[in-house]
Amino acid sequence: MSEVTNRQILLVEKPSGKLSPKHFKFTSGTIPVPRDGEVLLRVRYISLDAANRAWMHGATYRSAVEANTVMAGGGIAEVIASKADGFVPGDIVFADTGWQDFAALSAKQLTKLPRIEPMTHLLSVFGIAGLTAYFGLLEIGKPKADETVVVSAAAGSVGSLVGQIAKIKGCRVIGIAGGKDKCRWLTSELGFDAAVDYKDGAVFKALRAAAPAGIDVYFDNVGGDILEAVLPQMNLRGRIACCGAISQYDGAPAAHGPRGVPGLIVVKRLIMQGFIVMDFMDQRDRALADLQAWVASGKLKVQEDVIEGLEHTPQALIGLLHGQNRGKRMIKV
Amino acid sequence: MSEVTNRQILLVEKPSGKLSPKHFKFTSGTIPVPRDGEVLLRVRYISLDAANRAWMHGATYRSAVEANTVMAGGGIAEVIASKADGFVPGDIVFADTGWQDFAALSAKQLTKLPRIEPMTHLLSVFGIAGLTAYFGLLEIGKPKADETVVVSAAAGSVGSLVGQIAKIKGCRVIGIAGGKDKCRWLTSELGFDAAVDYKDGAVFKALRAAAPAGIDVYFDNVGGDILEAVLPQMNLRGRIACCGAISQYDGAPAAHGPRGVPGLIVVKRLIMQGFIVMDFMDQRDRALADLQAWVASGKLKVQEDVIEGLEHTPQALIGLLHGQNRGKRMIKV
Repeated sequence: MSEVTNRQILLVEKPSGKLSPKHFKFTSGTIPVPRDGEVLLRVRYISLDAANRAWMHGATYRSAVEANTVMAGGGIAEVIASKADGFVPGDIVFADTGWQDFAALSAKQLTKLPRIEPMTHLLSVFGIAGLTAYFGLLEIGKPKADETVVVSAAAGSVGSLVGQIAKIKGCRVIGIAGGKDKCRWLTSELGFDAAVDYKDGAVFKALRAAAPAGIDVYFDNVGGDILEAVLPQMNLRGRIACCGAISQYDGAPAAHGPRGVPGLIVVKRLIMQGFIVMDFMDQRDRALADLQAWVASGKLKVQEDVIEGLEHTPQALIGLLHGQNRGKRMIKV
Repeated sequence: MSEVTNRQILLVEKPSGKLSPKHFKFTSGTIPVPRDGEVLLRVRYISLDAANRAWMHGATYRSAVEANTVMAGGGIAEVIASKADGFVPGDIVFADTGWQDFAALSAKQLTKLPRIEPMTHLLSVFGIAGLTAYFGLLEIGKPKADETVVVSAAAGSVGSLVGQIAKIKGCRVIGIAGGKDKCRWLTSELGFDAAVDYKDGAVFKALRAAAPAGIDVYFDNVGGDILEAVLPQMNLRGRIACCGAISQYDGAPAAHGPRGVPGLIVVKRLIMQGFIVMDFMDQRDRALADLQAWVASGKLKVQEDVIEGLEHTPQALIGLLHGQNRGKRMIKV
């Protein structure tokens, strides 16, 4: 390691409109010294997630990020010094390290991880993205074989796994993604039955053509107009797993919600259910065993989008909010 | 019976805006002759429900009502002639008789009912209203003692029972209703802990004051702005039982849904679930046993709003859509 300082990226202003590089500032701090009960971490990979942007709006499932502090973000890090029981140098952990080279965190804030290759899989298929896809689809969506499953942001970190897991479970799977290339990739590489390019505009009609028997499970990553297009096509007793609302994060809050709420929910006896992966952590081992088996057998393909250099983190997040990534985007610090 | 003809009320035009008397026509038909497998019914009480209006928009949980046919509607009727096994003159049944004096229906379309006094209870607490309140609250809302339950259209047939059942289950109960008189009645007569008058305007603030610990269960009869005011006040893992959307029925479909969908559903991990009472009919006996015991012990008060005369049916429905009723509104034919 040639760094002697701790490079840090601060959020200097909470954006009210679209996120841009001007909302961030590069700075350099000292390498923190761990206190009793803490470890010193060297950050290896920083996870980029649409939720990072949602944190800037206010409290979500975590407290809001504050202006003029190191931007929050989950990452994979290596313990380089420990004053905490149970952690020794060389241990690999997941933690909210923030966007920086080094962090000193309490042992309670760390999740110890196995050393696997590639380490990046700890942020994608064996990390929050994979577990979110697994639990959201199977525990909230509850798809049955031969049912039709639709997933939005289908080329993203979670969506690309949701669709493949639904295929493993014997469902007909339709992905909604932005752009012809992504759509082609979903059907030709990941085995989706059909893909709808939302940039073409006519999402309602394209979905109708792709799902002539209606939709039984919708895994919603985006909210907004796409949710509105899906609702009237849901089948009786359909399930909508509400995972995120990417379409609503980067800008001012939407003036309105989707039409059909709650009228279509009543008439079709739908369930819309929000969840976060933390709610299912007691079942983590079972999920990881399934995911590992599927990856090992080649049934589940893992797409990662690794960008090198801490300095690119703001632009990488902005790009993700514009749908530039395919699969799990992360920064190699 | 002095009638020799069959008075009927037709829906002559599907309303695009507000329902008015001009959408109906009085006529007189012949008394139908039952065919094999059918019974001839004399209609005693016609149920008035906000859903009657929703049926005019198109297919819901039943097919749409068509123009220039007898207006559909559930009712309590007496068998006066039978060509069907299992039915004899004098039997009391529930059926979609329509708005008329006599109907000939297939035995498959009838639900046989016990003879009880008052017979009107078969349309209110022991009818669809009571069962909807029971199953929607207990099976969808799943309230626990000491939780806060909010119900809209709280002075209506379903809402007035929902609030009382929630009190029986040990919850803190807040009703939303239109007008000071109804609100006073909810708290002084039915035992609600608080009531919010939506005609006062500031529903969000009034709810915040009435439910300082947030809302765990919302039984939604109305949708629209009131649902939007409730959503941000839901507690983590709250449940919204979507029973109806009265605010959306009488007029053109809403241009937009409530803000906060799906963002707040994700962040708060809410469940929004639609249901209709038919989904729970296998548990009907248990529900009726509970409801009968609560009525007998005085824990559950039954409010009925009985209007005499078939000729008043259109105006009675229009009034119900404007919130004129307190408790279960019906026509004594």
